[in-house]
Amino acid sequence: MRLRSLLFAPANRPDLVEKFPRYPADLFVIDLEDGTPEPERDAARRALPALVAHLRRGGFERRLLVRVNQPRSPRFEPDVAAAASCAADGVMIPKLESEDDLRRAGALLEAAPGAPRGVIGLVETAAGIVNVEALARAGPPLWALAFGAEDLVTELGGRRTAEGVEVLYARSRLVLAAKAARIGALDQVVVDIRDAERFRRDAAFGRQLGYDGKMCLLPRQVELANEIFSPAPDEIERSRRLLAAFEEGRRAGRGVIEFEGTMIDEPLVRRARAILELASEDAPGGA
Amino acid sequence: MRLRSLLFAPANRPDLVEKFPRYPADLFVIDLEDGTPEPERDAARRALPALVAHLRRGGFERRLLVRVNQPRSPRFEPDVAAAASCAADGVMIPKLESEDDLRRAGALLEAAPGAPRGVIGLVETAAGIVNVEALARAGPPLWALAFGAEDLVTELGGRRTAEGVEVLYARSRLVLAAKAARIGALDQVVVDIRDAERFRRDAAFGRQLGYDGKMCLLPRQVELANEIFSPAPDEIERSRRLLAAFEEGRRAGRGVIEFEGTMIDEPLVRRARAILELASEDAPGGA
Amino acid sequence: MRLRSLLFAPANRPDLVEKFPRYPADLFVIDLEDGTPEPERDAARRALPALVAHLRRGGFERRLLVRVNQPRSPRFEPDVAAAASCAADGVMIPKLESEDDLRRAGALLEAAPGAPRGVIGLVETAAGIVNVEALARAGPPLWALAFGAEDLVTELGGRRTAEGVEVLYARSRLVLAAKAARIGALDQVVVDIRDAERFRRDAAFGRQLGYDGKMCLLPRQVELANEIFSPAPDEIERSRRLLAAFEEGRRAGRGVIEFEGTMIDEPLVRRARAILELASEDAPGGA
Repeated sequence: MRLRSLLFAPANRPDLVEKFPRYPADLFVIDLEDGTPEPERDAARRALPALVAHLRRGGFERRLLVRVNQPRSPRFEPDVAAAASCAADGVMIPKLESEDDLRRAGALLEAAPGAPRGVIGLVETAAGIVNVEALARAGPPLWALAFGAEDLVTELGGRRTAEGVEVLYARSRLVLAAKAARIGALDQVVVDIRDAERFRRDAAFGRQLGYDGKMCLLPRQVELANEIFSPAPDEIERSRRLLAAFEEGRRAGRGVIEFEGTMIDEPLVRRARAILELASEDAPGGA
Repeated sequence: MRLRSLLFAPANRPDLVEKFPRYPADLFVIDLEDGTPEPERDAARRALPALVAHLRRGGFERRLLVRVNQPRSPRFEPDVAAAASCAADGVMIPKLESEDDLRRAGALLEAAPGAPRGVIGLVETAAGIVNVEALARAGPPLWALAFGAEDLVTELGGRRTAEGVEVLYARSRLVLAAKAARIGALDQVVVDIRDAERFRRDAAFGRQLGYDGKMCLLPRQVELANEIFSPAPDEIERSRRLLAAFEEGRRAGRGVIEFEGTMIDEPLVRRARAILELASEDAPGGA
Repeated sequence: MRLRSLLFAPANRPDLVEKFPRYPADLFVIDLEDGTPEPERDAARRALPALVAHLRRGGFERRLLVRVNQPRSPRFEPDVAAAASCAADGVMIPKLESEDDLRRAGALLEAAPGAPRGVIGLVETAAGIVNVEALARAGPPLWALAFGAEDLVTELGGRRTAEGVEVLYARSRLVLAAKAARIGALDQVVVDIRDAERFRRDAAFGRQLGYDGKMCLLPRQVELANEIFSPAPDEIERSRRLLAAFEEGRRAGRGVIEFEGTMIDEPLVRRARAILELASEDAPGGA
């Protein structure tokens, strides 16, 4: 499953949700939580099935999740049940902290009719990070974990910077836990919505850490995320040259070769193969 | 409890301890451990009750702790008992590694008459960091954990730098564990006592990570720590503007607004509120 | 045991292995894994005893390990048995993830005649890092853990950079786990084999983090590693001055002194002593 970009729209804004088909995100999320003001959340939940049905009837077949309210709120179970009863592909659980939260969501999703549903867990509290390895290993229906830097820094009482050293530990720990459990990892949002350069740098750094994609607040962030979480032309070209050189070495009985100043063996060969595989998934235009 | 600054004085230096009332630290520590040469530690422990009584009689009512010797030394229990028998508010335990160390200290503190006492645990060994989540969760009487970089780097055999990347992992892990357990976190000392700029940068970075305050070796570091661990005027001003803009958005049915180029929702709103709360605790002058 | 440098040679290249006696590495590894192409690995294992016997007969007495295939491959046990049956000092286990891997290797090594053998565990998968504290504590015959960045970044799907921020978390976590368990720690390889400056910077940063030495792909990296993982003349000189000043302070009843602008107490004194101890192990020329 590709996870390069995930686009949010508030559940109380059908005008924005209805525009989803225009954008090339890999995942779409209708937000019953922070994006919708609290007094409107119950009404938004009631309106959800019609909203989703409308999207699907219009031919929208992309992966569509519902961000529910957090597991320790009374809205959690009704929200999950509402998502399970409509044609959404699953839920995003914010402020995920315990495996039990995942079990409760899983039971509600399974009880509903329809295709198997998935869960993306948003880990954005100190308690969630401290427990992230167990969360990542919880198994189906968990598809991926997402890293929520803004809530985390608020709880820590820290300061948010463009460089983000204040969350490097937590951001690194989450992606490692996800990959150890062989699930996906989605990187933090960039709230500076007018600063494309900052988004690019932040996305590129997330990819460097091993993230598969990024949560996006706006359509223009989706395009940047798709670009940055796809292999670049020079990466693809270099990977091809590297594999050719390695094959030649192997025919000469070498398990290690020198390639453009670098000593190459198995791990770098597998990395080059992975880039070519990702590249072959990309339709022209990066979407 | 405010924890912006913690000032040490060696227990064998009553001349320095007696100056505590002059300084605006949030916490004061009489040091029976490394600050006092080993041959003088037993005598210093015997002199402790008189020293504390003298301070208290002079009207000193600030929080006062005693740094005891480490839990695996024969001085640990006599030191804690001495602190418990006088008018100190609790103990600082260096080289904290196990929950059992906390339990032993807690039992001795509880057995003594007087007000409830607290503990600050100084985590400064590799074994302590590896166990820091369990330590943080140990519960009362633990008030806070403090991060001891100098001992840690000595044990690791590493090198200490101004940037401190060598301890970023441990320093980040400790503050996250403390906040997950809802206790305080005190940041590392700066041994370069003549370099105010270095102290400022180090303190600001500690605050960025989520620390509540900093251990200080000298009175002049206390003033800098108090300043840096209090909200700055521009932060306060921006927080006020942000909250006003968010309220306006909410009245218009928006859970997310754009504010000065940034997309704002719940976590950033709570961060702004926390800054205003901290600011309201500050007496004029930041002390 | 000194661990400043570890030099690999592929097991299918007796011409390279036979040159080991020329180089000043602290550890030498004959590589049955990635350095040897897969179709040649069984033949290389059969040739191993003669290769090792030849080296030893030539008077080579340095520590010599065999890198075996990974624990989840069918070659693991035959490889360990082959290493145990010859005059090697132990094995390096790649892709180490579980304590059980260590137990299986330990049992095979113990069953063989000859001197006690050791194990260096190469941790280079996300699952290995997530379990690194337990691995480090596994006890004998584990001598050290080594950090394998290239495999790890390949698995994470991340990007490798010269600065290496993408592995700072894992690299820091491993060295801390090793030191908490009182075993050695060997740092990542540098695949840019023509860039001595990059090797130097990377080695210096590894030492800053607490690593004892570095895996080397080529003899010229061994010399650099030996140099950088030995105390520098100015460090030795400063440590001597510091200890002299501290002794003077102690005679005057001070547990804390100011030394060249820095506040010095126990941890910095122990760090200075450790540098002088390391320096006294160094033969002239740093080898």
